[in-house]
Amino acid sequence: MKTGIIGLGLIGGSMAIDLRRKGFAGSIAGVEADKVNAAAALNMGLVDRLVTLEECVSECDLVVLAVPVGAAVKMLPEILDMFSKEDAQGKCRKTVIDVCSTKEQLVKIAHYHPMRSRYVATHPMAGTEYSGPWAAMPGLFDGKACIICNHEESDPAAVHIVEKMYDCLNMRPIYMNAVNHDVHAAYVSHISHITSFALALTVLDKEKNEKHIFDLASGGFSSTVRLAKSNADMWVPIFSQNRENILRVLDTYIEKINAFRKAIDGFDEEGIRSLIVDANRIKRIIR
Amino acid sequence: MKTGIIGLGLIGGSMAIDLRRKGFAGSIAGVEADKVNAAAALNMGLVDRLVTLEECVSECDLVVLAVPVGAAVKMLPEILDMFSKEDAQGKCRKTVIDVCSTKEQLVKIAHYHPMRSRYVATHPMAGTEYSGPWAAMPGLFDGKACIICNHEESDPAAVHIVEKMYDCLNMRPIYMNAVNHDVHAAYVSHISHITSFALALTVLDKEKNEKHIFDLASGGFSSTVRLAKSNADMWVPIFSQNRENILRVLDTYIEKINAFRKAIDGFDEEGIRSLIVDANRIKRIIR
Repeated sequence: MKTGIIGLGLIGGSMAIDLRRKGFAGSIAGVEADKVNAAAALNMGLVDRLVTLEECVSECDLVVLAVPVGAAVKMLPEILDMFSKEDAQGKCRKTVIDVCSTKEQLVKIAHYHPMRSRYVATHPMAGTEYSGPWAAMPGLFDGKACIICNHEESDPAAVHIVEKMYDCLNMRPIYMNAVNHDVHAAYVSHISHITSFALALTVLDKEKNEKHIFDLASGGFSSTVRLAKSNADMWVPIFSQNRENILRVLDTYIEKINAFRKAIDGFDEEGIRSLIVDANRIKRIIR
Repeated sequence: MKTGIIGLGLIGGSMAIDLRRKGFAGSIAGVEADKVNAAAALNMGLVDRLVTLEECVSECDLVVLAVPVGAAVKMLPEILDMFSKEDAQGKCRKTVIDVCSTKEQLVKIAHYHPMRSRYVATHPMAGTEYSGPWAAMPGLFDGKACIICNHEESDPAAVHIVEKMYDCLNMRPIYMNAVNHDVHAAYVSHISHITSFALALTVLDKEKNEKHIFDLASGGFSSTVRLAKSNADMWVPIFSQNRENILRVLDTYIEKINAFRKAIDGFDEEGIRSLIVDANRIKRIIR
């Protein structure tokens, strides 16, 4: 299938690698606004050619929008408009998907578009703390879950193509309402990034001696602070778009941190123990 | 060297495996209060025999105290008392070390003991979120840092033996004052555990549907919440013993979380960006 990928970073680049390797995409056209990243992606062979957004939509049957969600919200209607123009000259059977971490605004912005049915909202639950085409890697999506939102608003044929694509990446599809997706994503993904950023800021603030951090950082600290390396371009729009859900989770989180503070401050060993034992229940869920 | 290990959990058990494998300890005697753990450690071959505390001290030249810090604070003076008795009959050349995550109280409690010089305070910076003898593994300490505290209060010969032992485990020794150790440990290790416990509590509170957590937990969440599986028996006394340092770190941490909350609440994208970019500096230190 003629596939175009807009945004050649970690996610777009990793999709390019595996969609080609698994034979889903014969030739891949790439769109990338950053000139250095674009040239690198071409040199690394992530894409076969660099094209403009217009060329990409006109040449490809499947368009993957893999840019930060702030940009995606602007580009999705533009792409659907291009589909409309083609549709005027006959039946447009092209499909566009996004792969962003928040879904409600995207689904809302496309809702009344005449070409809405050619858009499939997806969120492949995979990533690393690195970004850029050099962060792209084979197997990134392997065995992970992919959320497909509001699929009843998409043409079944378009959904089918997207399911086939994610099946090629060996992802498990999960169907969910976009509003629910954003609530869950706030709890299970977005909050972890904020706690990691805050942890990094705390340690950097207090440990002026960087060598101490390096020396004393055991595996525990490194894994907890890992997400603090994540890219601002990606995360600023996520925190904006999912603002209300994230604020609600943050309030619960601040309550829990304060419960620890109070128990430690009050020499309440039984209180500390019961908080820890309670938290240990996560073992049953995350192996 | 005749080595005795008191506490056959993750740390004691992993030391037993490697000290034997590297030829440092010919025969290892183990002391373990929990009957099931004791029998398991013997069956698994972590130790050659189970003995009482008194037998351990009387038979061994090097005693490793690998129990939670609350118990270690009680047992260290008892062991030094036993050394005193032996010393009355001649020169006692035995050495005791602890491997706890907080050092100030231990060093303080031993400070005026007549056998103080036979005690070396150490903190091997290694671990996993698992506990018990079944969590013991070879290579746990390999390449990591080991803090040796207040070594000037220990007999140079005793320090030398301990350095040799940690060299066998392939650990890098770092020398530090116990008070400073506890400040740094609060920042770089203890706080990560509290943020992880609080994250687990938040998600468990809100996500009544455990399947959603499992489905949506990408690698990011799993690594951030990993430490929340850690054992209460180990962590309650650490939080108690390092209370003041931890409270100070928690206050800074709560400030940072609130800074995120305020920026997100106030639609302040530039503020969010600058917090993230600031946090990204951790990249230079943690690879």
